[in-house]
Amino acid sequence: MKKYSFKNDYAEGCHPNILAALSQTNLVQQNGYGEDEYSAEAKRLIQKKINNVDASVYFVSGGTQANLLVISSVLRPYESVIAAETGHIFTNETGAIEATGHKIHSVPTADGKLTPAHIQSVLDNHANKPHQLKQKLVYISNSTEIGTIYSRKELQELSDYCKDHQLYLFMDGARLGHALTSEANDMSLEDVSALTDIFYLGGTKNGALLGEAIAINNPKLQYDFDYNIKQKGALLAKGRILGIQFLELMKDDLYFDLARHANTQAMRIKAAFRENGITFLSETYTNQIFPILTNSQIEKLQRDFDFYIWQKIDETHSAIRLITSWSTNSDRVNELIHQIKSL
Amino acid sequence: MKKYSFKNDYAEGCHPNILAALSQTNLVQQNGYGEDEYSAEAKRLIQKKINNVDASVYFVSGGTQANLLVISSVLRPYESVIAAETGHIFTNETGAIEATGHKIHSVPTADGKLTPAHIQSVLDNHANKPHQLKQKLVYISNSTEIGTIYSRKELQELSDYCKDHQLYLFMDGARLGHALTSEANDMSLEDVSALTDIFYLGGTKNGALLGEAIAINNPKLQYDFDYNIKQKGALLAKGRILGIQFLELMKDDLYFDLARHANTQAMRIKAAFRENGITFLSETYTNQIFPILTNSQIEKLQRDFDFYIWQKIDETHSAIRLITSWSTNSDRVNELIHQIKSL
Amino acid sequence: MKKYSFKNDYAEGCHPNILAALSQTNLVQQNGYGEDEYSAEAKRLIQKKINNVDASVYFVSGGTQANLLVISSVLRPYESVIAAETGHIFTNETGAIEATGHKIHSVPTADGKLTPAHIQSVLDNHANKPHQLKQKLVYISNSTEIGTIYSRKELQELSDYCKDHQLYLFMDGARLGHALTSEANDMSLEDVSALTDIFYLGGTKNGALLGEAIAINNPKLQYDFDYNIKQKGALLAKGRILGIQFLELMKDDLYFDLARHANTQAMRIKAAFRENGITFLSETYTNQIFPILTNSQIEKLQRDFDFYIWQKIDETHSAIRLITSWSTNSDRVNELIHQIKSL
Amino acid sequence: MKKYSFKNDYAEGCHPNILAALSQTNLVQQNGYGEDEYSAEAKRLIQKKINNVDASVYFVSGGTQANLLVISSVLRPYESVIAAETGHIFTNETGAIEATGHKIHSVPTADGKLTPAHIQSVLDNHANKPHQLKQKLVYISNSTEIGTIYSRKELQELSDYCKDHQLYLFMDGARLGHALTSEANDMSLEDVSALTDIFYLGGTKNGALLGEAIAINNPKLQYDFDYNIKQKGALLAKGRILGIQFLELMKDDLYFDLARHANTQAMRIKAAFRENGITFLSETYTNQIFPILTNSQIEKLQRDFDFYIWQKIDETHSAIRLITSWSTNSDRVNELIHQIKSL
Repeated sequence: MKKYSFKNDYAEGCHPNILAALSQTNLVQQNGYGEDEYSAEAKRLIQKKINNVDASVYFVSGGTQANLLVISSVLRPYESVIAAETGHIFTNETGAIEATGHKIHSVPTADGKLTPAHIQSVLDNHANKPHQLKQKLVYISNSTEIGTIYSRKELQELSDYCKDHQLYLFMDGARLGHALTSEANDMSLEDVSALTDIFYLGGTKNGALLGEAIAINNPKLQYDFDYNIKQKGALLAKGRILGIQFLELMKDDLYFDLARHANTQAMRIKAAFRENGITFLSETYTNQIFPILTNSQIEKLQRDFDFYIWQKIDETHSAIRLITSWSTNSDRVNELIHQIKSL
Repeated sequence: MKKYSFKNDYAEGCHPNILAALSQTNLVQQNGYGEDEYSAEAKRLIQKKINNVDASVYFVSGGTQANLLVISSVLRPYESVIAAETGHIFTNETGAIEATGHKIHSVPTADGKLTPAHIQSVLDNHANKPHQLKQKLVYISNSTEIGTIYSRKELQELSDYCKDHQLYLFMDGARLGHALTSEANDMSLEDVSALTDIFYLGGTKNGALLGEAIAINNPKLQYDFDYNIKQKGALLAKGRILGIQFLELMKDDLYFDLARHANTQAMRIKAAFRENGITFLSETYTNQIFPILTNSQIEKLQRDFDFYIWQKIDETHSAIRLITSWSTNSDRVNELIHQIKSL
Repeated sequence: MKKYSFKNDYAEGCHPNILAALSQTNLVQQNGYGEDEYSAEAKRLIQKKINNVDASVYFVSGGTQANLLVISSVLRPYESVIAAETGHIFTNETGAIEATGHKIHSVPTADGKLTPAHIQSVLDNHANKPHQLKQKLVYISNSTEIGTIYSRKELQELSDYCKDHQLYLFMDGARLGHALTSEANDMSLEDVSALTDIFYLGGTKNGALLGEAIAINNPKLQYDFDYNIKQKGALLAKGRILGIQFLELMKDDLYFDLARHANTQAMRIKAAFRENGITFLSETYTNQIFPILTNSQIEKLQRDFDFYIWQKIDETHSAIRLITSWSTNSDRVNELIHQIKSL
Repeated sequence: MKKYSFKNDYAEGCHPNILAALSQTNLVQQNGYGEDEYSAEAKRLIQKKINNVDASVYFVSGGTQANLLVISSVLRPYESVIAAETGHIFTNETGAIEATGHKIHSVPTADGKLTPAHIQSVLDNHANKPHQLKQKLVYISNSTEIGTIYSRKELQELSDYCKDHQLYLFMDGARLGHALTSEANDMSLEDVSALTDIFYLGGTKNGALLGEAIAINNPKLQYDFDYNIKQKGALLAKGRILGIQFLELMKDDLYFDLARHANTQAMRIKAAFRENGITFLSETYTNQIFPILTNSQIEKLQRDFDFYIWQKIDETHSAIRLITSWSTNSDRVNELIHQIKSL
């Protein structure tokens, strides 16, 4: 029997409702390139859920694509981005942002989250204009790449700071569902929309085959984005497959139910480790956990489960990363918990 | 009742076999980013079908994406592309190639097809080096944007010419299935592979939800392409959906059956026009036809059918474009033919 | 004795006044990067001469650099340029504009000059948005690459058309001096400034060692240009050498005297050809002429003079190009005229 | 009387020999775009001095231009650069490298110098290919941006490491003259050439009006560089002004005499501070020094001299930066020393 994987949240296909909707609509003729009725309806639904009927909503295939599209369309050639050193755009996107001509100024952080003080330090160090770039966009992820989340107050402070300093605030929401359904969360989707210039709702890591929904809240940035999508090769001829998926995910809050399921499973595993006296690399309340284990404990868990060894702590200990998803099987989690108890 | 559309070949979803395969595999855990087993198997199948087990095969989402990835990864900054004036990269991709830094030299052609003489004329006009670019890649489409196809001899001549002049030959195969199953075709898929440096097999316009399969035949170009895919935002986390689709399309030659169906329907419609004494803008044998009609004939057909008016001929006549697809309904074609007869 | 060259207008160094000024100021300490007093004074002088004290003026090294800086700073990624097929940016700048990501739509013209009808034809052919680019900037050269000039009326019409269509009008003035001192000219420098969004005054081809003065007239485009100059490697540490040169050229209208000298010599040569019954490829009134000669006539002139054979007319005739400059020696022109008479 | 400036090494024009040579050659007709006889001779002279007759030598206008040309021409789109956090390309070039599409991985260093261990740490942190870039070029400056220099052994180690790891080694030599004539130097120009793939000899900061001489030592990189120069707007029509200047600088080792003069003046000032018990931010032996002074000492020196306050140390102390140059006046240095003694 194959090992069960906790390596990521995109190991399976998609939620069955999506497959059903693809089947039901399959032979209905539609306009191409995002001009289909499903996409139009999904956009309206999202505008309603984020409480901003004036937002421009676009569907694209994945997170790196969303990030490079947003950033390259918003900035002028000499404008730059500020991000945490753990930010996905800085570490794991093969220089996608720089490939569009824009530098990312990275800031070390304790928990993957930016504060106004972090941003101010970058501005302070780049006063020699025009020999230094003009900082213009702040990139944050929620939940972050290491599983932490922003509180409403933290996001409000960032938003205020950015407005005061003519900076755009852009939230990478590849795992926004997980952030907003975390037990530690105090923020609504409407809050996110009100406090950012642009953000996106990730589908790929929350039950879709592919797809992220970009919402442009700032009216000044709401024009001509479709040209960028086409130019960067991101406009699907059958845009319907993005619209259909987001229609299903947004209907009856399936999107949040799926994320909550992932979080719940992660928290169950976390509790099991904790009960066994095991500590964590960071305190997370979403679908990623980072327990610190001995080498022999790791070997034991590896017999039946797949996961990444995240960071070596010392000669005898490493932190591992376990990720749960919309489709994580409760029975297999039970098995894992059983094994954790006997470590 | 809604009009039936002959506007394009991507108006519906996908072939039912694909939906079935997506369902069957849905909960099987797989590695992400194209490292799944379905993609691996589909690549092997394609290598076999193109008779080149050493080809590098990559799956991406769409044609513009395939074109910009191939061209930007193959060329150095000062190298340029030669294409027909009707070439998709020159006309309808929002400057996607130029956005990666590369100029396209366009050549007017009678039928959308390039010849060595066309290419030579570009080289002759760019002798003032280094004040003029270094031409390095020849872009052709088969079938072309106006429905014509290359013969084996024509492709052989282009291939020889390109080799002699250190030019890469790249075939946009968004509609390669339609070209190779045309009644006028004398070329095999193996020929295409043997005579080009790079080409792709289009899925989006031939029954897939999305996806093009790029085959790199020239060993000198077979390295590091995966970095480019990731950097340009084209690497799907759930690469399985591309692999699964091409597995289905390539199995038992479904790919060619679907294209043949589209061609057959177009040829039936073409015959009906011809029998009625109607002439065509160009002589095509694939899934696109361009009959020249009077304005009143156009109005009549528009009552029940959707299509593009392609080109105004004079005050009383225009050419229209009718495109058939893998899913074009024979009954609706019968209705159209019936109406054509009574024009 | 070496042949005398009529190949271009940059074969010698610079006007002696410039060398004298460089010597006189050599040890005066100045701020770097264009913040020197000479540049400031030269900018004020230019603002006065173009009758626009609010224009932003920047000095850069050469024409290709000026063109790519202006275009890449003004356009958004999906915006494109319209130019004549003979436009320098389209033919002889190694794809410099495309290298910044922007397509140039070229238009065939009889005389190297664009009209509103030319531009309208490009707009008409690019209505399929967003699959086609957004045309945003019109590039013209005055004098053109083939020696012709715009009349005031022609420029006014272009300017009106561009304003009506939300297009920027940019004039490449590498040889603006020659245009404005042509016997056929009816336009002033103030007119040029009033009718364009951006233009530049070429120094390199009119007596400077290097240097073009860019004037940004449109207030909406007058910001942050200095970042682009630095980012593209075009900001000289010793910006003084550009300021000092333009101070000398603009003082007492030396700039126009030099251009007039070049034009006068060209017109003398032109008259000599004409008297001898020789015809021309195009009718020019600036410092470039294109007489059509027999092969044996060309061979005779080649004994003592260097020039380019521009275009083969038939087996026995070609057009040659003769260019005069600020430093063309009257005595050598006399010799050339003498030889023309005896052809 | 105006304050005397120690702010930079490009506050004056150029060495008188250069002005004389410009005057003497002024009316000699030459080919444009670097095809002149002076440039050809200067290239031969440099090939001889660096002991590599096979090196390709190119002249460009400035340091940022040289850096972006070299890096963008050498790297493929997904390849990246490693540099010290103080590297000029990382801090003060307005994102010029990123604007060509390439990320710079920065490394904190004590003294502005990279070691193999620094580079290894970057490689170690970027093992997740192809989600992370392919590191391909190491950028170093000699002398560095903070005045330090590489020893022969250090450069040898870097060179060996880079060869072992398929990395190119590129030296920014904007102040290479100062490095090689430092009292602490043990390396020859021939060594630099033998141990780097590409480097350049800076003219702008060592007595030229403008100009850097790029030497490409690695034969694999010696092709088509001229296309890049033209495409990036860096090819001067009157390339002669670069050739003439380097001919003068390289003749009789004027280049090194000028750098030595700058170093000597800086060392005189350094000795004066040291005698007065003043310490330094870093230990330098070239033309930049960073003494740490009290605020009142700084105010006193500011009465007659211009310089930058480099870094605040505490409430009452800051480090200042003093830069000397080829033209630094000994008498004014004497005055400064006099004032230092009385601080």
